[in-house]
Amino acid sequence: MGLLKQTIESIKPTPKAIEASARSHLDNLTKPPGSLGRLEDIAARYCLITGTSKPKLGPKRIYTFAGDHGIAEEGVSAFPKEVTPQMVMNMLSGGAAINVLARHVHADVRVVDIGVDNPLEEADDRLLRHKVRPGTANMARGPAMSIDEAERAVEVGINLALEASKEGITLLGTGDMGIGNTSPSSALMAALLPCSVEMATGRGTGLDDNALADKIATIETSLKFNSDRLADPLSTLAAVGGLEIAGIAGLVLGAASRGIPVIVDGFISSAGALVACRMCAAAKDYLFFSHKSAEAGHETFFKIFETEPLLDLGMRLGEGTGAALAMSIIEAAVKIYNEMATFDSAGVSNKD
Amino acid sequence: MGLLKQTIESIKPTPKAIEASARSHLDNLTKPPGSLGRLEDIAARYCLITGTSKPKLGPKRIYTFAGDHGIAEEGVSAFPKEVTPQMVMNMLSGGAAINVLARHVHADVRVVDIGVDNPLEEADDRLLRHKVRPGTANMARGPAMSIDEAERAVEVGINLALEASKEGITLLGTGDMGIGNTSPSSALMAALLPCSVEMATGRGTGLDDNALADKIATIETSLKFNSDRLADPLSTLAAVGGLEIAGIAGLVLGAASRGIPVIVDGFISSAGALVACRMCAAAKDYLFFSHKSAEAGHETFFKIFETEPLLDLGMRLGEGTGAALAMSIIEAAVKIYNEMATFDSAGVSNKD
Repeated sequence: MGLLKQTIESIKPTPKAIEASARSHLDNLTKPPGSLGRLEDIAARYCLITGTSKPKLGPKRIYTFAGDHGIAEEGVSAFPKEVTPQMVMNMLSGGAAINVLARHVHADVRVVDIGVDNPLEEADDRLLRHKVRPGTANMARGPAMSIDEAERAVEVGINLALEASKEGITLLGTGDMGIGNTSPSSALMAALLPCSVEMATGRGTGLDDNALADKIATIETSLKFNSDRLADPLSTLAAVGGLEIAGIAGLVLGAASRGIPVIVDGFISSAGALVACRMCAAAKDYLFFSHKSAEAGHETFFKIFETEPLLDLGMRLGEGTGAALAMSIIEAAVKIYNEMATFDSAGVSNKD
Repeated sequence: MGLLKQTIESIKPTPKAIEASARSHLDNLTKPPGSLGRLEDIAARYCLITGTSKPKLGPKRIYTFAGDHGIAEEGVSAFPKEVTPQMVMNMLSGGAAINVLARHVHADVRVVDIGVDNPLEEADDRLLRHKVRPGTANMARGPAMSIDEAERAVEVGINLALEASKEGITLLGTGDMGIGNTSPSSALMAALLPCSVEMATGRGTGLDDNALADKIATIETSLKFNSDRLADPLSTLAAVGGLEIAGIAGLVLGAASRGIPVIVDGFISSAGALVACRMCAAAKDYLFFSHKSAEAGHETFFKIFETEPLLDLGMRLGEGTGAALAMSIIEAAVKIYNEMATFDSAGVSNKD
């Protein structure tokens, strides 16, 4: 049995029995019950995911998957394709937004070349080299990649999660870099949520009205062209997805199989998480959604996927930047759970 | 001239000329322009407040003001009044939610007894003792305090801000502790926004429907009883306010007079900030509103006061807990501004 199938089969829904003891602990802390709102929900969910009512916080890591997109040649992005390898180098030098925010929350960032259309020869060994192919093919004219390539890209993500688990990582975040990657993300959401392409598509890094209309038409063409390849999540991912999106899906599956909470970054990462959850519904239990992107399709995603983001700061950068900010909130919630005094221990009177 | 008047006169609107250079710097960073959303707005505002396009981050501090409320005897809270001094002790021991969250964001917490109805003899010298009076009088039967007491309480906050400025603090947060203090906060909002008492009033630490109706009636009675004392913000504060709310108002004014950004915590702190801004409209330029409280009246506040909170996590605890979480977001924004590479420095191609 292949790693993907094996991983999917090993993912179990989180143990709901822990919820009661986690909530009871939270209600004994010196605050009115429920007064820390979503921080309390996060702490309880963290207990369920990690399978204990005595949760631990250890090292945190964000994997930023980089890949290129054949669809970029259709003019779906405001930035040229050469920006993907340039930004990979920027991330390795510590100058990208994700580096700044990861340092801020004391998380490690690992940049993964899963499909950049550039040999990245000048990159040093901090770059995780797992290139499945140098960018996808143009999905408006055929499948973005083969099913075998899609599976291998998902398995890159799974293996990184398994490695992280062995290294004692207790909280994972997803990230992406890839010029043109809002288009495959919108295509995947349209196919897998499902919804109309229009509802799933936004301006990416900054398209104007005409370019947005063209982008929607290009995604519709891509889905039509690949209509006989959308039978299941893996073949859909191969047909209209992206390599970094596949890597993110794999990271989610691998983390869920090991009981590690995963913070899903923004729009592209949500597409990856959606692929993972359509492959294995129980994977959803292991996710926190960091923020609502300004990318228009993200609101559609949250509505149909029935989940709520933690933050809404109008961000639309990707890279893992939203995941990094949310990491700090999740860590805060677990510290509340672990470090606050109880009514008894602090000698504080409880509610009448 | 008294300290309050002098402070108000020294507050100037933030220098709008800095906005253009701050925005131009943000647009040169390696990200699509505007793609970090509110983080970019925060960074620009931080520059304006501190009067420089090269902003600095230094030590951060939250002042949590504690006071008691005569109105508590009307049964407006789900918790008994003895909880105020008990929670002060809990904060001094490091076991309250604010301690956990302040440690998480590396901020200092200072607990200020500005009006607890208890001598707090067992407290050590970490407690800042600035008691103006041991709790307010019952505002449903007369003014909560005299105008002189209100002014002195505001000046406690001003002096703490001036001290913090001398000590090199670059970011301040507000916090409150006081059983019964949503009632004066609602009364102040109704009087100063202005709006109906119903629109400004919520369930506090957990009232049921009947108790909420009684609370609204009590606040309406208080405003009616004090109707000839609501001519200006200071006398309104004296009539239907609270000592910790006055301290928060003073902290805002003092910080604004020194160009220190202030993060306003939740509902009670918003009432304090409102008092400050009604005394001096320019003070609003120096504020960040941390989060939208689950306390019903807070939504009314944001709508009428025309400002937006950074977070919406369903919290309603006070103490400065929302300010602490938002501190981390604001610091992240300034680090983005200061630490990201530019397109030129990183050799990244800009938008077509």
